[in-house]
Amino acid sequence: MRITHILNRNFQRKRADWVSPDVKWTDNIDDVLSSDADIVVELIGGLEPAGQWIRRALESGKSVVTANKQVVARHASELIRLANQHGQHIAFGASVAGGVPVIAGLQEGLAGDELVELCGILNGTCNYILTRIENGVAFDEALREAQKLGFAEANPAEDVDGLDARAKLTILARTGLRVAANHSDISARSISMLAPIDFEYAKLLDCTIRQISRAEKAGEKLLASVEPMLVQSSSPLASVEGPQNLVMSTGKFGGETVFAGHGAGGNATAVAVVSDLISILRSRQTAGLALYEDGITELPVSADFTTRHYLRFVVRDEPGIIASLAQILCRAGINIDSVFQKPGFPKSQLPFVITLEPCSAAVVRESLKQIAKLEFLVEPCVDLPILD
Amino acid sequence: MRITHILNRNFQRKRADWVSPDVKWTDNIDDVLSSDADIVVELIGGLEPAGQWIRRALESGKSVVTANKQVVARHASELIRLANQHGQHIAFGASVAGGVPVIAGLQEGLAGDELVELCGILNGTCNYILTRIENGVAFDEALREAQKLGFAEANPAEDVDGLDARAKLTILARTGLRVAANHSDISARSISMLAPIDFEYAKLLDCTIRQISRAEKAGEKLLASVEPMLVQSSSPLASVEGPQNLVMSTGKFGGETVFAGHGAGGNATAVAVVSDLISILRSRQTAGLALYEDGITELPVSADFTTRHYLRFVVRDEPGIIASLAQILCRAGINIDSVFQKPGFPKSQLPFVITLEPCSAAVVRESLKQIAKLEFLVEPCVDLPILD
Repeated sequence: MRITHILNRNFQRKRADWVSPDVKWTDNIDDVLSSDADIVVELIGGLEPAGQWIRRALESGKSVVTANKQVVARHASELIRLANQHGQHIAFGASVAGGVPVIAGLQEGLAGDELVELCGILNGTCNYILTRIENGVAFDEALREAQKLGFAEANPAEDVDGLDARAKLTILARTGLRVAANHSDISARSISMLAPIDFEYAKLLDCTIRQISRAEKAGEKLLASVEPMLVQSSSPLASVEGPQNLVMSTGKFGGETVFAGHGAGGNATAVAVVSDLISILRSRQTAGLALYEDGITELPVSADFTTRHYLRFVVRDEPGIIASLAQILCRAGINIDSVFQKPGFPKSQLPFVITLEPCSAAVVRESLKQIAKLEFLVEPCVDLPILD
Repeated sequence: MRITHILNRNFQRKRADWVSPDVKWTDNIDDVLSSDADIVVELIGGLEPAGQWIRRALESGKSVVTANKQVVARHASELIRLANQHGQHIAFGASVAGGVPVIAGLQEGLAGDELVELCGILNGTCNYILTRIENGVAFDEALREAQKLGFAEANPAEDVDGLDARAKLTILARTGLRVAANHSDISARSISMLAPIDFEYAKLLDCTIRQISRAEKAGEKLLASVEPMLVQSSSPLASVEGPQNLVMSTGKFGGETVFAGHGAGGNATAVAVVSDLISILRSRQTAGLALYEDGITELPVSADFTTRHYLRFVVRDEPGIIASLAQILCRAGINIDSVFQKPGFPKSQLPFVITLEPCSAAVVRESLKQIAKLEFLVEPCVDLPILD
């Protein structure tokens, strides 16, 4: 393999000595597309012009390696079809979990299983922020820290609101569960409402809180969501730290498989990109990749998982609060599992937690709409599903 | 894909109703080799006739999928060369860690990294036995239990003496580190000398004990061994249970990656076998597999890792024991890190533990030869390296 071109804005400034003088530097994509290069590596990110460049590369008879989760999450089927039409490959191992070989693992190593469930931690920034909140830092402060350290984007919504993880989950569901889902149909809930008190209560339940991406084949639909959840302290998910990513797959035959490692950073991404390049090199003469498309079905998406729930309220204390809440939950057929109230908080702003027995996420959310109208609530209820 | 033949001893008795009547049952390998089947799946185990059958299958223009770790550990280079000569593939994903896609992960997903170290738990039987010893059961009793449950073979040496794990480690070192090593040069030490007291002392060091297979590229040699080691309770290796397997790889660029899942059992093996079949199907027209052979080097093997060590002695108590031991260790340039002695044991048979600062395994073993001559020793010293 040999680098032929490097495309970059202001390439004059960026030209590096250690790059062979044979390599052409340019800021014009046409220089690349009209060259005799065999493979284009797209690492510019964002929807456009990346999407258009990938299409044009495939149409001009070049294979593509991309780390672009947003483009792949939206357009995988179209791009793979285009690649096949032109006898080319498109590989996107770097688009999910950086250096963790989960795409190859699902696509090759577990091809013989029938995977039914995926669950993981796919965003290192959220992981960092959650660890800081666990240590008593408020969300806003933790986010500022992450931005200062260069983890979080200036516009942090992609990370903290789950949009980044949602794109990755869409790609994993396609690769592992063989379900093509519309990425924007996957429910993504922010971690921004979490406070240190939630970790204190989670600890009482022998849990911690993580941003969990999960997808499950359930008959004719795909259950999928990205949201903060309580996870058991003994789960491998609880010990994932900083930029680490972890994906657990559950197969009908092979049971649970775990992939874990560095999910972010230049080196991890480079490993995934070079692995994809090698994989294309190895299968250069094959129509092989077309076979990966066999049996992909399009399914509608729902986030209506059935799990236990953790509800954290902050109230102005007065008699009858539990009774009012219990009544609303009872009418919806939801059973209360436990009630926790830590001492030492002012009566004007009293946090406490109710956990629910396994119930539908949609039914919980309906009840919370009614609960939101109760006057003793000082702030909106924090509703976290519990992963068992 | 379609099954054409099933070869088995006494196939008349084993013929199953749910197998299509088109499938030919036979006990004669020539029926299979002279047929027009494209791929032979070898699951008989053992060195012969399996090795000969694999060779003959490749020579007769058939690809081979095998779960045979002993044949692959010994003959991978020769068999891959033979496969390439005949334009065929040989795939052996099921030979290591059953359903855990570690071969595919190393070969495809991490192809872009330069792996320098592998470390893992590759034998479920040892795992089971060690867990039982941890619960206070003696080794012999734990082994009998494992045999009763069908985990361990009637001849348990393959498992408990590390020969099974050693074959798997040879295959992993080849796939991940790209080093072809002679499997019998890899030091394998038994778990049979362990007793519940070792787990009690390990716990004092915030550790547990696992059969660890590890390999590391160190200049012009391969450091490799299979042996019981102390591992930190917080390590993912410590929480591996029963038939689970776990492999951690360390790459120069991507850092640490973990693969974990079910390492044994019919279903997990079947997943690996079917995944290999699919992978061959996908790359049917390629010379691709030949490329996996690029850059494999043959290196000599050494087990001379530098680590901390745990030494457990059982002595007839008398004055000067620590002094005698310390003198021998000191002469070899080994520093003592700590000394532990739990109360409540008879003076005639007193167990205690010395831990050593990082030092060469070979130097420790030399010193232990001298220590073995000391008269106060009631049984041989148990020497476990500590994985940090």
